[in-house]
Amino acid sequence: MSQPDLAQRRSVFLDALARLHERFLVGVDGVTEVWLVRHGDAYAELVSLDDSNIDPPLSPKGRHEAERLGLRLRDAGISSIWASTIVRAQETAEIAGAPSGLTVQTDDRLREAKTHWEDLDLDGETPGKAPGGYIPFVEPADEVVARMDAAIKTIAVTAGPGRRVAAISHAGAISFYLAHLLQLDSGPLRVLPQFTSVSVILIKDDRIVVQSIGDVGHLAGDPYTG
Amino acid sequence: MSQPDLAQRRSVFLDALARLHERFLVGVDGVTEVWLVRHGDAYAELVSLDDSNIDPPLSPKGRHEAERLGLRLRDAGISSIWASTIVRAQETAEIAGAPSGLTVQTDDRLREAKTHWEDLDLDGETPGKAPGGYIPFVEPADEVVARMDAAIKTIAVTAGPGRRVAAISHAGAISFYLAHLLQLDSGPLRVLPQFTSVSVILIKDDRIVVQSIGDVGHLAGDPYTG
Repeated sequence: MSQPDLAQRRSVFLDALARLHERFLVGVDGVTEVWLVRHGDAYAELVSLDDSNIDPPLSPKGRHEAERLGLRLRDAGISSIWASTIVRAQETAEIAGAPSGLTVQTDDRLREAKTHWEDLDLDGETPGKAPGGYIPFVEPADEVVARMDAAIKTIAVTAGPGRRVAAISHAGAISFYLAHLLQLDSGPLRVLPQFTSVSVILIKDDRIVVQSIGDVGHLAGDPYTG
Repeated sequence: MSQPDLAQRRSVFLDALARLHERFLVGVDGVTEVWLVRHGDAYAELVSLDDSNIDPPLSPKGRHEAERLGLRLRDAGISSIWASTIVRAQETAEIAGAPSGLTVQTDDRLREAKTHWEDLDLDGETPGKAPGGYIPFVEPADEVVARMDAAIKTIAVTAGPGRRVAAISHAGAISFYLAHLLQLDSGPLRVLPQFTSVSVILIKDDRIVVQSIGDVGHLAGDPYTG
């Protein structure tokens, strides 16, 4: 094979890379970034989940995590912050939105997938699949995905092209939704979104791409020590 | 159902959460974190990949990305940094290790999966599966996984428990390895690791867990503008 042929074949690589980037919305104008974030810790000092704390507030550790998240969101220049109606998500959004001067917008569709535990009628239900198989969700995965998808797209359209926004949600709901976007039909996504972890979703028109999953870099330099 | 029964059933949630955290090595002592990082951009200003630049250096954009990565690695307190022998990985590690005062350690097993393009013998080979289906890798995925797994475990053992280390590698090799750890037997991981993206792998004894995938939060506040 002659040298010109070889150079030509190799240059095909750059074309392939450009197509790959376009496919994943890398360097594409007019993309909206939705940072899908799990709430901070609400369980560190909880002994039980009885009627008085079925919807517990953040623990001191969770408030620390939300503060670190807030610095990251400010540095990244988010333009709005959303949360489910659940207390730990609302508190995370309030704390994390403060450095950016943002008030929390609420979308109940970001709520956690329903489990046995908050349900008064515990009889006769079949547990659904779950991240890691430990939490028995009773809300069908396709219903969780449908409401999360509607919420994320509403949030993206409301923000507009070129914007970066945060949406505070919950481990089960985030896991089900990411597995759907990643087309993991055959099983769960074997990543547990940590407290205040950031997963970045890129949206343009009717296209939606997962850029990253579950990062907690904002906690690495200043872990909570109690 | 009486109130004590209900409270008891709900408290099962906290036990399940504790098992889930243990399963994913959350809050477990003696874990080694390997931050698996893609090299910075090396293609932004490249017209072709001929014999003179089959192993191209970082572009100005790539050097900027590596500098931002370096601040993140310093803030996170990494204790060592490793890279493949490939120039773009070596340069990324040199730049990103400098703020931490680290010299680069080299492990050739972190190299990119082999493609047609760097191969002089282009005839008669069948492309392997690829991230997004755009890049025809010719090195079998199981061979890529085996050498990456050996490299990551060597790096973790060398670092020791409780340490955090960085390993600079390549998009194809990272994608194949993450798909293996996530047990995605049925298809690729539909995430393209961005330039200098960080994926965190937790290792303890013979257990290994993916904590996060493909984050570029260190670029969000200061994107390269040329």
